[in-house]
Amino acid sequence: MSLEGAYDPENIFAKILKGEMPCVKVYEDEHVISFMDIFPQAPGHTLVVPREPVRNALEMTDGALQATIVRVKRIANAVKSALEPDGIVITQFNGAPAGQTIFHVHFHIIPRMDGVALGAHGSGQADMDELKAQAAKIAAAIEMR
Amino acid sequence: MSLEGAYDPENIFAKILKGEMPCVKVYEDEHVISFMDIFPQAPGHTLVVPREPVRNALEMTDGALQATIVRVKRIANAVKSALEPDGIVITQFNGAPAGQTIFHVHFHIIPRMDGVALGAHGSGQADMDELKAQAAKIAAAIEMR
Repeated sequence: MSLEGAYDPENIFAKILKGEMPCVKVYEDEHVISFMDIFPQAPGHTLVVPREPVRNALEMTDGALQATIVRVKRIANAVKSALEPDGIVITQFNGAPAGQTIFHVHFHIIPRMDGVALGAHGSGQADMDELKAQAAKIAAAIEMR
Repeated sequence: MSLEGAYDPENIFAKILKGEMPCVKVYEDEHVISFMDIFPQAPGHTLVVPREPVRNALEMTDGALQATIVRVKRIANAVKSALEPDGIVITQFNGAPAGQTIFHVHFHIIPRMDGVALGAHGSGQADMDELKAQAAKIAAAIEMR
């Protein structure tokens, strides 16, 4: 799917937002839901999914985007506190050729460790108990002022 | 440089913000400056640099971050209109192990074409006339409402 096209309300993230699919939740409020990526590119790979039903960030309203990015920052700071990575990538893919695989807008928070290469997205499903332990540590570190 | 440390006011982006270093400018206002990456990972690779003098997005104030992300979206939409890529990556590196090389917070807007792999950042300096032509096309397509 390119940058053009219609939003599919039956995408996986829409189902998670509606509570029709499970996720390993980190945070939720009126603007976003945040959960662990089950195909992490690095341990602690966390997603932030705006509730706004659009395919990508280029289509977001200013208000939803502003509410989302503040939450991305707070959750990224929680990832930093909880997991103590050496660096953090915040990234957001628009369109399949950019690496997007689920066509509901989302932001990736990916912890990086010195000298450890990123894994390929989807190279393997994470251990669920490990994801739950990471999510609990990150959730406990979130400071939403 | 890890996620900890002091902001160096003599970094290259600080100098560009102060007008002490040149750039191939795309856009400028009271919140950000945007210019072409001279070591592009793909043709049309554009940077958005907040004026806020902090090392990374984790340290930004909410207000500066919100003002910045709206401009990132508008400039990304201009990149889409001007260059017609198949996808667009919006990414932001925090700390050297995450890929950050200049320690003033900045966002990357990277056009992606179907079947074309990303180049390594810093693998070669772009042709300046080509950058200027891209910048002019992107600047002409920006709609700042």
